[in-house]
Amino acid sequence: MNEAVQTLEGWYALHDFRLIDWNAWKEAPGELRKQAELELHTFLHEWQRIEDGKQGSTAVYSIVGQKADLVFMHLRETLEELNELETTFNKSVLASFTIPSYSYVSVVELSNYMAKPGTDPMENPEVVARLKPALPKSRHICFYPMNKRREGNDNWYMLSMDDRRALMRSHGMIGRSYAGKVKQIITGSVGFDAWEWGVTLFADDALQFKKLVYEMRFDEVSARYGEFGDFYVGNLLTPDKISAMLSL
Amino acid sequence: MNEAVQTLEGWYALHDFRLIDWNAWKEAPGELRKQAELELHTFLHEWQRIEDGKQGSTAVYSIVGQKADLVFMHLRETLEELNELETTFNKSVLASFTIPSYSYVSVVELSNYMAKPGTDPMENPEVVARLKPALPKSRHICFYPMNKRREGNDNWYMLSMDDRRALMRSHGMIGRSYAGKVKQIITGSVGFDAWEWGVTLFADDALQFKKLVYEMRFDEVSARYGEFGDFYVGNLLTPDKISAMLSL
Amino acid sequence: MNEAVQTLEGWYALHDFRLIDWNAWKEAPGELRKQAELELHTFLHEWQRIEDGKQGSTAVYSIVGQKADLVFMHLRETLEELNELETTFNKSVLASFTIPSYSYVSVVELSNYMAKPGTDPMENPEVVARLKPALPKSRHICFYPMNKRREGNDNWYMLSMDDRRALMRSHGMIGRSYAGKVKQIITGSVGFDAWEWGVTLFADDALQFKKLVYEMRFDEVSARYGEFGDFYVGNLLTPDKISAMLSL
Amino acid sequence: MNEAVQTLEGWYALHDFRLIDWNAWKEAPGELRKQAELELHTFLHEWQRIEDGKQGSTAVYSIVGQKADLVFMHLRETLEELNELETTFNKSVLASFTIPSYSYVSVVELSNYMAKPGTDPMENPEVVARLKPALPKSRHICFYPMNKRREGNDNWYMLSMDDRRALMRSHGMIGRSYAGKVKQIITGSVGFDAWEWGVTLFADDALQFKKLVYEMRFDEVSARYGEFGDFYVGNLLTPDKISAMLSL
Amino acid sequence: MNEAVQTLEGWYALHDFRLIDWNAWKEAPGELRKQAELELHTFLHEWQRIEDGKQGSTAVYSIVGQKADLVFMHLRETLEELNELETTFNKSVLASFTIPSYSYVSVVELSNYMAKPGTDPMENPEVVARLKPALPKSRHICFYPMNKRREGNDNWYMLSMDDRRALMRSHGMIGRSYAGKVKQIITGSVGFDAWEWGVTLFADDALQFKKLVYEMRFDEVSARYGEFGDFYVGNLLTPDKISAMLSL
Repeated sequence: MNEAVQTLEGWYALHDFRLIDWNAWKEAPGELRKQAELELHTFLHEWQRIEDGKQGSTAVYSIVGQKADLVFMHLRETLEELNELETTFNKSVLASFTIPSYSYVSVVELSNYMAKPGTDPMENPEVVARLKPALPKSRHICFYPMNKRREGNDNWYMLSMDDRRALMRSHGMIGRSYAGKVKQIITGSVGFDAWEWGVTLFADDALQFKKLVYEMRFDEVSARYGEFGDFYVGNLLTPDKISAMLSL
Repeated sequence: MNEAVQTLEGWYALHDFRLIDWNAWKEAPGELRKQAELELHTFLHEWQRIEDGKQGSTAVYSIVGQKADLVFMHLRETLEELNELETTFNKSVLASFTIPSYSYVSVVELSNYMAKPGTDPMENPEVVARLKPALPKSRHICFYPMNKRREGNDNWYMLSMDDRRALMRSHGMIGRSYAGKVKQIITGSVGFDAWEWGVTLFADDALQFKKLVYEMRFDEVSARYGEFGDFYVGNLLTPDKISAMLSL
Repeated sequence: MNEAVQTLEGWYALHDFRLIDWNAWKEAPGELRKQAELELHTFLHEWQRIEDGKQGSTAVYSIVGQKADLVFMHLRETLEELNELETTFNKSVLASFTIPSYSYVSVVELSNYMAKPGTDPMENPEVVARLKPALPKSRHICFYPMNKRREGNDNWYMLSMDDRRALMRSHGMIGRSYAGKVKQIITGSVGFDAWEWGVTLFADDALQFKKLVYEMRFDEVSARYGEFGDFYVGNLLTPDKISAMLSL
Repeated sequence: MNEAVQTLEGWYALHDFRLIDWNAWKEAPGELRKQAELELHTFLHEWQRIEDGKQGSTAVYSIVGQKADLVFMHLRETLEELNELETTFNKSVLASFTIPSYSYVSVVELSNYMAKPGTDPMENPEVVARLKPALPKSRHICFYPMNKRREGNDNWYMLSMDDRRALMRSHGMIGRSYAGKVKQIITGSVGFDAWEWGVTLFADDALQFKKLVYEMRFDEVSARYGEFGDFYVGNLLTPDKISAMLSL
Repeated sequence: MNEAVQTLEGWYALHDFRLIDWNAWKEAPGELRKQAELELHTFLHEWQRIEDGKQGSTAVYSIVGQKADLVFMHLRETLEELNELETTFNKSVLASFTIPSYSYVSVVELSNYMAKPGTDPMENPEVVARLKPALPKSRHICFYPMNKRREGNDNWYMLSMDDRRALMRSHGMIGRSYAGKVKQIITGSVGFDAWEWGVTLFADDALQFKKLVYEMRFDEVSARYGEFGDFYVGNLLTPDKISAMLSL
């Protein structure tokens, strides 16, 4: 048996992708639409309050293409809080005009391949900040789930810890070369959802998502061992932009 | 031909995942919603009565994310009882406000890789208790279906009994190291549903699901021979919490 | 090129899985429900008449879990009869309260690996009885479709006739060891549906489905060459049980 | 790089599979149903007129099982004609009572593995007749899409022209041994639809579909290189039979 | 780690495939249909204005078969513009009569395998014209998404830059041999959508799509390393043809 790398976990994450039911929205009386929009702004205020209190963080982006119209990415201390958040939203008038199209349950994770024995990473404020991050307000978001492959000779989980460490070091160097251009949040979902990890990227220039993911694909970790789900890309939704999006 | 391991079977299991049809629920008259909730509490009482009589057991949890809002996990003596339970539920007013989203049919199973010849395991009260268990009331549930792989050189069913026994011993040791943290119920579904086994985990700390499943993934049994379906994770629904969930 | 084994074919088979539209059923006026139930009993009578006349056979079982509520398994002389049967059912009031969820088109088949040259198997009344069988009234049914694998070194169709014959002999011996416990009907669907065969099992003890299929999985025919679709398991529906199932 | 075999193309093909919306049909006023049926017969007349003028051909069959109730197979000179035909049908009252369930876009194709250099196959009236065929009125139809495999050592497109020619010769001999029993129309769909070819078979005895496809499966071309989609099988719908099918 | 090829990016692309909800359209009052058609022509004018100002380009084609009735292919400077375009369309009366059936998000891309060191390709007006192209008005369109394979010995991303360059040169020569017959626009979607590239082909003779894609399939780049999604093929929709398509 191989040694599993030690992981550190922070806040739980729920990516909640929704379509807008445009036909219902266009047929709804103006009063009801006003109420729905008011609710949304109340939610945004409440989520901001939680973020200000460092109890979690929420990002809201539109999604390009038919897979979703928008995504709410929520970080919270517990699965119960995420569940309550979902239920509260589902009970709203606003939710009646949305159609769930995809969701992802995970937890912010740091893989500790470089762990120094004898030190407690949770005493490192930088580590803690990465595990319980305030989500950025970059112009663009990119989300995709992924697995490490376990097929024939390309079986990540049969590699020795040393081999994995060496491969991940080179992989991490590509990521670091995009520092300042792309902010990356890795969430682990083993035991929680259909893939092993979720990757959420933030950038002001969406092309950097393509450059980063493409460059990594030539790295052995991705080339031989990466399996990727669907990709979602979108644009920041400020409260004003949501209002504009919903106004008929 | 290889020798199949002997298995012991207990109660049949039905995992019944449901979405709540929130739009219909919000539009329903208060009287009807009250009736539906009353029905639910009647069901819960009835299921508790069966559990008290040691004729079965039922667990009710919410599910995080869009794949389901809640799961009823039922254990019963026969497939007929599970079927009747389903039909009774489907005829209720409550059921009209739910949408079936996934189900799993299986039977509680112990793989007897360590069987001692000349002993009858069913005379062991501990074994019987594991085959007909009262489901725990832990804070969290995790469910996933799985297969043993049969691909190229990674074909579990072509391994000798001795090789499988040795591999399962090491696998079992990981499970045992989580004793007190994670309670695991294995149900067999060969001949009953789309995968070979269902795994249901219970824990008070949901992170332990991730730790356990991830650690096992580096074990050869999972790394080379495990194929996993989708994962569902959720929170305990006490009668009070269900009422809170349904109240508008 | 390899020699194909000779097969014998009997009645065509249609497995017609249906969900009940419980919401519509609960909302329907009592008169209409009475009419629908009457139709069902008329169908059952008609199908029994055909079975009595040895022109076909029909089995009706409930299905456990959300994949279907019930299955009609029809055997008839021609595809036209199956088609007419479907259309007649679809035109009924009863059908308006069902939702098709899965179907399978095949023909009862015997693989003649043990054929003795110079004999005509169709002169053997036992063979004919197996090709045009009256379906049993066992307590439980199990259905699954399957393929023989054609992947890399595990390619059934590249094996010599001798190798296939030897493998099938050992496979058949497992089946025979369940005689009296499980009745097995193989239907071929090459050219008719998405898989190469359908397997329908009947037993009074549902656990025997699991025991049989699991034991076979360690046999090389299944271990290396078997690919399995979804499994459906259910309980016998007598006319009385159908009425009970539909009564609100 | 390998040499691609030369192909000859004739009429474009659209296989248009439809379910009947029986619930809507049963609820429709008699007048509307009469109008819909009239439209259908007008379409059949028009399609016959085109066939008589050798501008195309259309076959109409029912389908057994839940995947479709019927299929319209249209052959026409151009993609524009097929598109117009679809749109005209979609605008009809009749179409409102059908639900599209599957379609396939392709073009009648002859693979010219046996081409004699220096001859122009399009001067051969037999070849032209096969590229622009009048569809038969056999009792049964069978349709399935397929690919040539490109996996590991089983990569059709990496074989030399000579190897492919030798393999196809043996494959074609099986087909020819069914002459008079099964009529086969190959349509190419590279660049047009999800698979590389569509195969449409016609026969008076549906068992011959099974015999032919099963025998071919042991031929190396199918055993190692064939990938098959779903199979659809059905019965000839004459105008009278359509009327019977639709009458309540 | 392998060196990633340098890529050049131009306009972002959204392929927006839509079905027409014919039942709703046929039931709509004439006034509403007139309004919807007017909106469409307003959109077409607006998109033409943007194309004339070299701020983007839009192509509108019908699609043959049931996968879609039409596709809008939009090229724009930013993801925000594409998103706004989608939202504006979704708010229209016209959109209420369409059902989204597939979409693809990507960016026009040139792979720079033949890059000459020391030159800036963006100073080459021909390169810029290919990155920000006015979409052709050919009679036919063909769209499909694709990946480069990463499986066992067929792993494109583990090849050296030199090997990839040599393979792509031969591949490109096939494409060039179709110059004047097929116009090809490659869009990259790594980080944006479910596949790595989208390929959009334009031709006056639809058979050329088949010839080109089939010929390429024998080229090692496709034969060993190409993975293809579904193919969509269709016909040019001029404003007049759209009106004809929508008129009842």
